Amino acid sequence: MESIGIVAPQRMQFTEPLALQNGSTLNGYDLMVETYGTLNAARSNAVLVCHALNASHHVAGRYVDEPKNVGWWDNMVGPGKPLDTNRFFVIGVNNLGSCFGSTGPMSIDPATGRPYGASFPVLTVEDWVNAQARVADSFGIERFAAVMGGSLGGMQALAWSTLYPERVAHCIDIASTPKLTAQNIAFNEVARSAILTDPDFHGGDYYAHGVIPKRGLRVARMIGHITYLSDDDMAAKFGRALRRENGANGTADSYNFHFDVEFEVESYLRYQGDKFAGYFDANTYLLITRALDYFDPAKAFDGNLSAALAHTRAQYLVVSFSTDWRFAPARSREIVKALLDNKRQVTYAEIDAPHGHDAFLLEDARYHNVVRAYFERIAEEVGA
Amino acid sequence: MESIGIVAPQRMQFTEPLALQNGSTLNGYDLMVETYGTLNAARSNAVLVCHALNASHHVAGRYVDEPKNVGWWDNMVGPGKPLDTNRFFVIGVNNLGSCFGSTGPMSIDPATGRPYGASFPVLTVEDWVNAQARVADSFGIERFAAVMGGSLGGMQALAWSTLYPERVAHCIDIASTPKLTAQNIAFNEVARSAILTDPDFHGGDYYAHGVIPKRGLRVARMIGHITYLSDDDMAAKFGRALRRENGANGTADSYNFHFDVEFEVESYLRYQGDKFAGYFDANTYLLITRALDYFDPAKAFDGNLSAALAHTRAQYLVVSFSTDWRFAPARSREIVKALLDNKRQVTYAEIDAPHGHDAFLLEDARYHNVVRAYFERIAEEVGA
Repeated sequence: MESIGIVAPQRMQFTEPLALQNGSTLNGYDLMVETYGTLNAARSNAVLVCHALNASHHVAGRYVDEPKNVGWWDNMVGPGKPLDTNRFFVIGVNNLGSCFGSTGPMSIDPATGRPYGASFPVLTVEDWVNAQARVADSFGIERFAAVMGGSLGGMQALAWSTLYPERVAHCIDIASTPKLTAQNIAFNEVARSAILTDPDFHGGDYYAHGVIPKRGLRVARMIGHITYLSDDDMAAKFGRALRRENGANGTADSYNFHFDVEFEVESYLRYQGDKFAGYFDANTYLLITRALDYFDPAKAFDGNLSAALAHTRAQYLVVSFSTDWRFAPARSREIVKALLDNKRQVTYAEIDAPHGHDAFLLEDARYHNVVRAYFERIAEEVGA
Repeated sequence: MESIGIVAPQRMQFTEPLALQNGSTLNGYDLMVETYGTLNAARSNAVLVCHALNASHHVAGRYVDEPKNVGWWDNMVGPGKPLDTNRFFVIGVNNLGSCFGSTGPMSIDPATGRPYGASFPVLTVEDWVNAQARVADSFGIERFAAVMGGSLGGMQALAWSTLYPERVAHCIDIASTPKLTAQNIAFNEVARSAILTDPDFHGGDYYAHGVIPKRGLRVARMIGHITYLSDDDMAAKFGRALRRENGANGTADSYNFHFDVEFEVESYLRYQGDKFAGYFDANTYLLITRALDYFDPAKAFDGNLSAALAHTRAQYLVVSFSTDWRFAPARSREIVKALLDNKRQVTYAEIDAPHGHDAFLLEDARYHNVVRAYFERIAEEVGA
């Protein structure tokens, strides 16, 4: 399958104040955006792709000066791919508060001339959606053929369908949940604690100190990674294999009796943690995990998700993965049930896949065929 | 059920060098011990209770000057309790390397006059068992009526039955595993990373700096706690309930849009983390989690657990809990299968309990009845 090839991001500036869920107002903001494919004359073939925790507007393709920087959903989005850019106009937006060029804690606060840092407002999924709506406005898109996302991206897709029911024809909600469980929140809290208690965090204003709370970010990412993989997948990938070069006494299967890397799984986690700490902003990590915690469309309806989804108008594709224990299939089925209570059209696929939560990012024929077939149906509807 | 009442620990000193699995030798060591009940004339009614990560020799009863310091398995051990101290002589030993009075990283190294710190040897479950065997020798106990433990304590019980087959009549292995999975090791590694990268850790020699790596210990304990509870148990205990006193705008169910405690589950984890960081030694935490990682009796037998258990002579009670995802029932069944391959007598109970791994510490009628019945059988055998 060919890739979409070279792509280029664009910066969109919004000057109209944005009212936030926390009661404050952001006077203006930038969002980094990438688009693939061509918007048709009727502007009916647009698909918004919402990203999860550590991703960005760079959904597909690669940059001319960074040939190895491939978009995070390149296997899903491109010419001839499940979301076919020969037929659809696809938009990727880096969320407000993120650290890949959109306005966030690292940005300069025009009021002070210094980075926002700890003063950047705590955002919600609904705030992201409201900010994204202005991107749609800028492109003259009244109604998306689909809003699509996995994990936290799925929350945004669901929120689009409740906040802007007339602007979403189809909502594609993958490996997601209508709200975090206590265990989900607990994992987020431990990750945040690691960051908040890192002496280099400086209450969120580490930019001014010329340091980065790398230790905290590293531990946060290591915790996250455990929840993205299934127990079985970790067993298959790493098992109890020892790092060969570390074998004591010259043999590869002896223990070294130390606290450095001994098992392959330790090496993997440390590598992932170090890499993440090198490119991700700690304040953004706090902000995004909090948005995850807060998301709960049923909250304003006494916990009744069916009531919360009563005013939706979209049709839905909901996909879950059998070994995803972060957002288990049962969570997706709660969404499906609430939609069926409202007589919405819902397609639900529970994919038997071994890769845990990460499965939504991986290439899997059954999964991709479900999404491909669904988009073919949308293409027929919108004449794409 | 009456408690055993006031108990008192004793310090046992061992001067004979102990050869360790890492190839080094410990010249002498102390172990803190508590005993309950009376050793009969035949010395046939002794039961060794092995502790898990954060516990100690203080298995049951309370101290005269610390009436609130109740032993960690007080609901299991005492007069008329499942392990009945009217019939059995019960020994609790604080493991070598722990931080409750037995020789460990906090102890003064006689060779230097300073705390061992980072120079304390990395121990294994087998080292603990070898050290415990000397306790048995001191009491003149040739053969235990039972060696018993939960979680890491169960590993010690299993190791007793392989290292000293003639000295263990019954092995009681609760909520345990024959080896950690990659996911188990991963959680340990993240916890250790939090400690190792705490600037107050000072390579393990923080005693000399007058500090404690509290931040790391706190995060380590928070991670641990998530794995001790089941997802459903957390949902039942905390759900998404907000801390009431923190409600914004005077209402109890509004978000505050900050990173302080917002949900009950966050408050619980922070409390547990802070408490733990106040009493537990960081080097001991590293050491014990590493011993967990390393435990794998099948390792020397090409991964064949049946071969590893071929020379056992004990009878076994194996107990697991349905919602324990740290050491799932499947892990206990691996032990049962390997024992049955060797035609050992095994009683296996899989208790349907909602409390995850922690269930082994909690009072549950079905669980306690299984243990009680098993000890009644032992009591008949040994005339206790």
